Amino acid sequence: MQIGLILVGFGNVARRFVRLLDERAARLEGEHDLTWRVIGIATRRHGAVRDLDGVDLTRALESADAGKSLGAHGESARDPLTSLFIRETVAAARQRTPDTPVVMVETTVLDIERGQPAIDHVRAALESGAHVISANKGPVAFAAHELLDVAARHGRAFFFEGAVMDGIPVFNLLRETLPAVSITGFRGVVNSTTNYIITAMEQGGEFGAALAAMQEAGVAEADASFDVDGWDAAAKTAALINVLMDGDVTPHAIDRTGIRGLTGEAVRGAVARDRRVRLVASAAWRDGRLAGRVAPEELPATDLLATLAGQQNALVLQTDLLGEIAIVQRGAGLTQTAYALLSDLVAVRRRL
Amino acid sequence: MQIGLILVGFGNVARRFVRLLDERAARLEGEHDLTWRVIGIATRRHGAVRDLDGVDLTRALESADAGKSLGAHGESARDPLTSLFIRETVAAARQRTPDTPVVMVETTVLDIERGQPAIDHVRAALESGAHVISANKGPVAFAAHELLDVAARHGRAFFFEGAVMDGIPVFNLLRETLPAVSITGFRGVVNSTTNYIITAMEQGGEFGAALAAMQEAGVAEADASFDVDGWDAAAKTAALINVLMDGDVTPHAIDRTGIRGLTGEAVRGAVARDRRVRLVASAAWRDGRLAGRVAPEELPATDLLATLAGQQNALVLQTDLLGEIAIVQRGAGLTQTAYALLSDLVAVRRRL
Repeated sequence: MQIGLILVGFGNVARRFVRLLDERAARLEGEHDLTWRVIGIATRRHGAVRDLDGVDLTRALESADAGKSLGAHGESARDPLTSLFIRETVAAARQRTPDTPVVMVETTVLDIERGQPAIDHVRAALESGAHVISANKGPVAFAAHELLDVAARHGRAFFFEGAVMDGIPVFNLLRETLPAVSITGFRGVVNSTTNYIITAMEQGGEFGAALAAMQEAGVAEADASFDVDGWDAAAKTAALINVLMDGDVTPHAIDRTGIRGLTGEAVRGAVARDRRVRLVASAAWRDGRLAGRVAPEELPATDLLATLAGQQNALVLQTDLLGEIAIVQRGAGLTQTAYALLSDLVAVRRRL
Repeated sequence: MQIGLILVGFGNVARRFVRLLDERAARLEGEHDLTWRVIGIATRRHGAVRDLDGVDLTRALESADAGKSLGAHGESARDPLTSLFIRETVAAARQRTPDTPVVMVETTVLDIERGQPAIDHVRAALESGAHVISANKGPVAFAAHELLDVAARHGRAFFFEGAVMDGIPVFNLLRETLPAVSITGFRGVVNSTTNYIITAMEQGGEFGAALAAMQEAGVAEADASFDVDGWDAAAKTAALINVLMDGDVTPHAIDRTGIRGLTGEAVRGAVARDRRVRLVASAAWRDGRLAGRVAPEELPATDLLATLAGQQNALVLQTDLLGEIAIVQRGAGLTQTAYALLSDLVAVRRRL
């Protein structure tokens, strides 16, 4: 079955995603009866392009890699233009080939104030009859319930595996492999940049140099505050609370302390006491309230979270039936993030 | 949708399974449109009972808990009688209610010589049109490909999540959440009894007392060799190789060293050097051959496997696309094992 893709955002993640689809094309078709065609691309600064017969991807990738405009429309797709572009593209595609499902792929940059304009993009896609897969945490961190309701009302899927721990299954893990289990709490290391900085300091490195290395590698955001002040971890914590524990919070409701206050001395002092500092994201029921927290914690060296080096992530889920289950991501990079979208796309295919 | 269940084996796991279904009945029906009726039970020593209208489970559980015969048939269901019982029960059920799927639940004791009679039970069920869920590792450790082929030929599901790490998703993890990913190797701690013994020795305990504690708790097999000589871990390693890596081995092909040779002195000596001994199950491609191995290994204290205490298990999967992914089971017990069957039953329901 062929699926029409609309890419909203065409940065590193989206470009790696379409290349990854290409690399795994034989398995996707052979094992999942899944082929695709990109019918639209919308970007913030490099215009938009639409072609129901299939966008010329080679040209689009070349233009984007070179930082040039996508051409076709010649104009940028600034919101609310992007939402309009999504609605029109979905409508045109559904009119022309009603049996070809459309999937909108959200990879715009997270806005930590309100999660916009990604929330509008997701709503526009679902309302006009497309499924949505998102590597952007904004929609699920700020508006999970509203958007899942919209999806259910329109009989469409809304998946977002990439919001936490890249393509390592977290949301899919619970949804697909742990039926009838409830999550009662969690703790994890979910931000790669801060874990890299902390473990570099354990080895004698200093904060600034480690942060610069992560920014150079394209892992840390250009705005260091996003990682260092715990905003990224708070957005992930909110997403996990909203989806795994049926909570209803935004990243601003998370009790958040970043790692700016950490010195190499303090981090190495912990090591000397056979302990480790980690930026821990957690959620628990306290006095009848579901409380989310992001803060540096000093852990025994044999704690699973303490063993995470560099960019490694892990999430320990507390369950009502199976005790604790942990999932650990030991490799990180653009491919892992792009893979989250691939696994979501297959999940959509399975629903059809 | 109602599913007819045939329980082959009615020991602790099967009994906990039917009680667990009952405890989670509302969620199974509400979230998965899944109800069930037990239409047959076959045991090795306590007879068999069949009732297409639904076996009286309260009575059957009471009889089994008390070690009494299930009554009805008055005779034990010795193989090949059990396979005949399965075929007849499936045929009768399908004739009477063709739209009600039948699932055979295999929980007989693992035979490490040949994996029998469980393999015959699975084949009989699949060939007569039932789906199969198995907590017994025998079929998948000894005959995975043959049985998966039989299942495919008859359009039936054959799931066995409980074969490794109880209900913690391993096979379901790969099948449901990691599409288009290949496993290139793995290492893990997959036997609870030996890990309990080793970590007890780290604390100053001795081998015999720790083993006795596990036998008393019903975790270790009565025949200590099964755990201590690495047979259980070898069966799990074979199952993982056959299913995750498309290998074709039996437990006898695994290079196997148990923990009988380990002394408390050696285990504590490793701790003194900031290292830990663990019974590691692993598989890797070596010189073009897929080699499985079970043996005690000395690991750095911060290795994920070294952090596993008591009955905890973990599996580190090496992948071609995402680097290493690990899944960790921190709680263990009868409920976890029974849950594997529940999650497999939901997976069957989703396939229908």
